[in-house]
Amino acid sequence: MISKLIDKIVEKDAPVVVGLDPMLSYIPPYLLDRAFESKGETPEGAGEAVWLFNKEIIDAVYDLVPAVKPQIAMYEQFGIPGLMAFKKTVDYCREKGLIVIGDVKRGDIGSTSAAYASAHLGKVTIGSKAYRIFDEDMATVNPYLGSDGVEPFIKVCQEEDKGIFVLVKTSNPSSGEFQDRLIDGKPLYEHVGAKVEEWGRESMDGSYSNVGAVVGATYPEMGSVLRKIMPHAFILVPGYGAQGGKGADLVNFFNKDGLGAIVNSSRGIIAAWKKDAYASFTEEHFADASRAAAKDMIRDIRTVLGR
Amino acid sequence: MISKLIDKIVEKDAPVVVGLDPMLSYIPPYLLDRAFESKGETPEGAGEAVWLFNKEIIDAVYDLVPAVKPQIAMYEQFGIPGLMAFKKTVDYCREKGLIVIGDVKRGDIGSTSAAYASAHLGKVTIGSKAYRIFDEDMATVNPYLGSDGVEPFIKVCQEEDKGIFVLVKTSNPSSGEFQDRLIDGKPLYEHVGAKVEEWGRESMDGSYSNVGAVVGATYPEMGSVLRKIMPHAFILVPGYGAQGGKGADLVNFFNKDGLGAIVNSSRGIIAAWKKDAYASFTEEHFADASRAAAKDMIRDIRTVLGR
Repeated sequence: MISKLIDKIVEKDAPVVVGLDPMLSYIPPYLLDRAFESKGETPEGAGEAVWLFNKEIIDAVYDLVPAVKPQIAMYEQFGIPGLMAFKKTVDYCREKGLIVIGDVKRGDIGSTSAAYASAHLGKVTIGSKAYRIFDEDMATVNPYLGSDGVEPFIKVCQEEDKGIFVLVKTSNPSSGEFQDRLIDGKPLYEHVGAKVEEWGRESMDGSYSNVGAVVGATYPEMGSVLRKIMPHAFILVPGYGAQGGKGADLVNFFNKDGLGAIVNSSRGIIAAWKKDAYASFTEEHFADASRAAAKDMIRDIRTVLGR
Repeated sequence: MISKLIDKIVEKDAPVVVGLDPMLSYIPPYLLDRAFESKGETPEGAGEAVWLFNKEIIDAVYDLVPAVKPQIAMYEQFGIPGLMAFKKTVDYCREKGLIVIGDVKRGDIGSTSAAYASAHLGKVTIGSKAYRIFDEDMATVNPYLGSDGVEPFIKVCQEEDKGIFVLVKTSNPSSGEFQDRLIDGKPLYEHVGAKVEEWGRESMDGSYSNVGAVVGATYPEMGSVLRKIMPHAFILVPGYGAQGGKGADLVNFFNKDGLGAIVNSSRGIIAAWKKDAYASFTEEHFADASRAAAKDMIRDIRTVLGR
């Protein structure tokens, strides 16, 4: 799978992911009204609003970027109708040729982690039949439970040509509470990073592994260290833009081949119409604002990479 | 919420949780067939089978135990129909007076963690209305992202009188890979435990906090240490029975007041009909086998506690 992602990154010259994390406050009022008029101020209405919003954004950016990252919490909060909108979004993005990274941050043990891996990346057996359920291409995984939690995902990566990104150093302010604590003179995130490199050997796909890592753009020095510890891991980098990560710092997350990282922006792209810089598009043309913001981000990152 | 759980534990003299983790292999063939005949060998059929299975078990044990713990992965693997069975199970258990602990192990940052907290424990605002979505009473939370990930759950605990159990030391064999690593001379799980006690002060409910911890029955010495580090945290103890945790060791997880812990068994109760000890019930009476296994487990734990 990672080679497919790399092909698309190279083709579009854009190591960029659009985070599809649709809070209702990001959705223009006229679109919310349209959804609520047809389905009420209900979870069904919220699901419809999210879907209408996503579809316009996907249509506006799919030719620019290789991948999207829907954050499942933003769908799960609306229950069944929300998760139906998640599935519709995943399917539509794949139809459009985008790689879909399910930002699910699941992590459990043994058969339970296997159930999550089957639900999101693999197939589930029901009687004599097998079904793909949410069917993302890649997913994020939480490492706190150790190998027992991660191995079932790696197994599915091998069997189904899928990929994962393991949380190593997250972009949030308090990520250091546990992740930065020193163990044998090195922070926990370095130990997790070393494990990612080790797990990754089980599922190589070209020069990179299907087992990648999440490292926040907000911690560029740590990104630089982790880049060296995990030479075969692709790094999914959240926290660019709205969370404070700056373009110039992103170079730390890339390898010398100009690959090895893919940078996510959610709010900065999908809610661009609410920012002063893109306000001239007006809310009716929110998707055009997203397209402009995506282009600006791609330009920023190309500059960083000297292209 | 924790005081409600304690009242039910005391009333039933049973610090026991039944884990509703229905793998299809736990469901008797005749019941699977019934579900598949009406809905096919489909995710809908799997959801129906899971629901029929759960309902009989709930009917057979609800008077014996204070709480149940549905593991959402086992439902999520069947997609939308699976999650509908999850919701139906949560609602039915609450109707029966059981406390429902959603074993969701969610954990993310900021607004994303808030979305999970709203989905599982709180309310979600849609236009001018507010809805309860999955509406469990308590949920499990992953601490790897630090306070940013946990605080949104604690806020909901305070506002809605709900509770959480934070993963501290999990029951699986590889849990030590990160959790046992020494930081300033103490294992990571002790640092997480200290944080749980600190977070817990924000949401006290009687002598205990609405912020509890998960510590595996498979690590009784660590349970003993953590019991002291987190005097106000209730400990949810998985790993009894099938995973190898023994009754006698469970005393370590309790306080001198005979409270402070609640022990989970999933497979040992819901798949009791498959064990030699309960095989005489036959598959048609699988729920009676579960009832017998629950009674045996309660008796075992009462003995441990000298009651």
